[in-house]
Amino acid sequence: MKLKPDEIVQRMWVKDAFTCALGMELLEIDAGRCVLRLRVNDSMTNGFGIAHGGITYSLSDSTMAFASNTHGRIAMSIETSISHVKKVLLGEVLTAESREISRGKTVGRYEVLVTNAAKEVVSVFKGTVLFSQEAWENQR
Amino acid sequence: MKLKPDEIVQRMWVKDAFTCALGMELLEIDAGRCVLRLRVNDSMTNGFGIAHGGITYSLSDSTMAFASNTHGRIAMSIETSISHVKKVLLGEVLTAESREISRGKTVGRYEVLVTNAAKEVVSVFKGTVLFSQEAWENQR
Amino acid sequence: MKLKPDEIVQRMWVKDAFTCALGMELLEIDAGRCVLRLRVNDSMTNGFGIAHGGITYSLSDSTMAFASNTHGRIAMSIETSISHVKKVLLGEVLTAESREISRGKTVGRYEVLVTNAAKEVVSVFKGTVLFSQEAWENQR
Amino acid sequence: MKLKPDEIVQRMWVKDAFTCALGMELLEIDAGRCVLRLRVNDSMTNGFGIAHGGITYSLSDSTMAFASNTHGRIAMSIETSISHVKKVLLGEVLTAESREISRGKTVGRYEVLVTNAAKEVVSVFKGTVLFSQEAWENQR
Repeated sequence: MKLKPDEIVQRMWVKDAFTCALGMELLEIDAGRCVLRLRVNDSMTNGFGIAHGGITYSLSDSTMAFASNTHGRIAMSIETSISHVKKVLLGEVLTAESREISRGKTVGRYEVLVTNAAKEVVSVFKGTVLFSQEAWENQR
Repeated sequence: MKLKPDEIVQRMWVKDAFTCALGMELLEIDAGRCVLRLRVNDSMTNGFGIAHGGITYSLSDSTMAFASNTHGRIAMSIETSISHVKKVLLGEVLTAESREISRGKTVGRYEVLVTNAAKEVVSVFKGTVLFSQEAWENQR
Repeated sequence: MKLKPDEIVQRMWVKDAFTCALGMELLEIDAGRCVLRLRVNDSMTNGFGIAHGGITYSLSDSTMAFASNTHGRIAMSIETSISHVKKVLLGEVLTAESREISRGKTVGRYEVLVTNAAKEVVSVFKGTVLFSQEAWENQR
Repeated sequence: MKLKPDEIVQRMWVKDAFTCALGMELLEIDAGRCVLRLRVNDSMTNGFGIAHGGITYSLSDSTMAFASNTHGRIAMSIETSISHVKKVLLGEVLTAESREISRGKTVGRYEVLVTNAAKEVVSVFKGTVLFSQEAWENQR
């Protein structure tokens, strides 16, 4: 039986140690859509004392991973880019929201915008996933 | 007095909590060039039990950050992309090596290849930094 | 005296032989915003008999160039990416519309969506420009 | 019978009106590898009187298209990025050379460097293609 979006994400989440280690929270999940939240803590800064580029990237990549897998088939990220638009400071709370640009049999494209508490865009992520033929309900 | 590449990286490293938290090691540093190493531990997996895309991204982004700042002026990453070429498994040791593609007064471009122990390329990163007018020796 | 968006684009357009050679038409121009149109003719196909990737790229790049220069300072594209989402056939009429993602003193980011007559997205372009200190009214 | 790299490129070239319209020349072709040349003529400038970004992009995209199709299966570009590193002037002769970063059953990655007559890199292109199951020898 086909799994629902939240059932798929639950299966992913339990293995996703990095998403947990960064303290991400799931705010919304639906077919092709995901919203995550993360608070920038003091283990997340870079050499300038602001959030490391890897923080917004990892948040965006997790958001795309959950969004793209909700359709029921295993989806793997193959190609991504991120523009760092605005500095992110220690203590800021970031929200990442995905938008499904296109979805074919083999390839899906997603945009993920990360915004701060003031609703300012801090990064723009664009990613491509490959949909495999394997269905989530057949995974163990 | 102008700081040397390793002096600049030392100043960055002490603030770079995320680079430390991920256990990155500095293998080589020189003007415009950096090599880092990271071991994939069990807090770094994603929903498929392999390394999260944020791991190779963060490793590559740190490598570019160090490489680009060695020239003596503050350099900030503005635009990056990464291709995930090969799955990275738990326990693998990754090496990231930068190549300076171009460097002008305002803009620098870097490629960072991440390879595994078998010397296979696992990700290809391309990034753009903006050089500010601020010199490292005037920073506190 | 500061030039208006359409005055700047007129000055650009007369030198822009490639934009003209591809038969692009200006539909809208305003501060930070541009809409262009292009018809895919039989000199624009690739080895598969569909529109060459360079067509949607060139259309998107021109759209960003006009949009980003309307603010009055010389803006040059430094970094761009494009996802080819849907095949474009001979004879199709494409519309490219820019969105200003962010604009600072030095760097601007733009997204350009190209759609076909059926309003389907055929490509997604993201680009970064560098704003120089030179004003358009001082150019000859 | 499996077609050779140059036989595949000949079949592509005859349909590739845009590659021809831009005056590209084939210098080298081999499995996974292509070198093309182009002279920047006066129909190729942009609003600043230098080569339009679409010129180096189109040259790079054609180079990747030929390189990736030489393996015998239909390969389509899905995702590309290009860094414009150095201005290209009217009359310059550009050489584009591909490098195969990785090649799997479904996905291939290519880098294309464009250099000028002084061997300076003017643009860096990275692209992803999707390999279909269709073989070139079965095409008409």
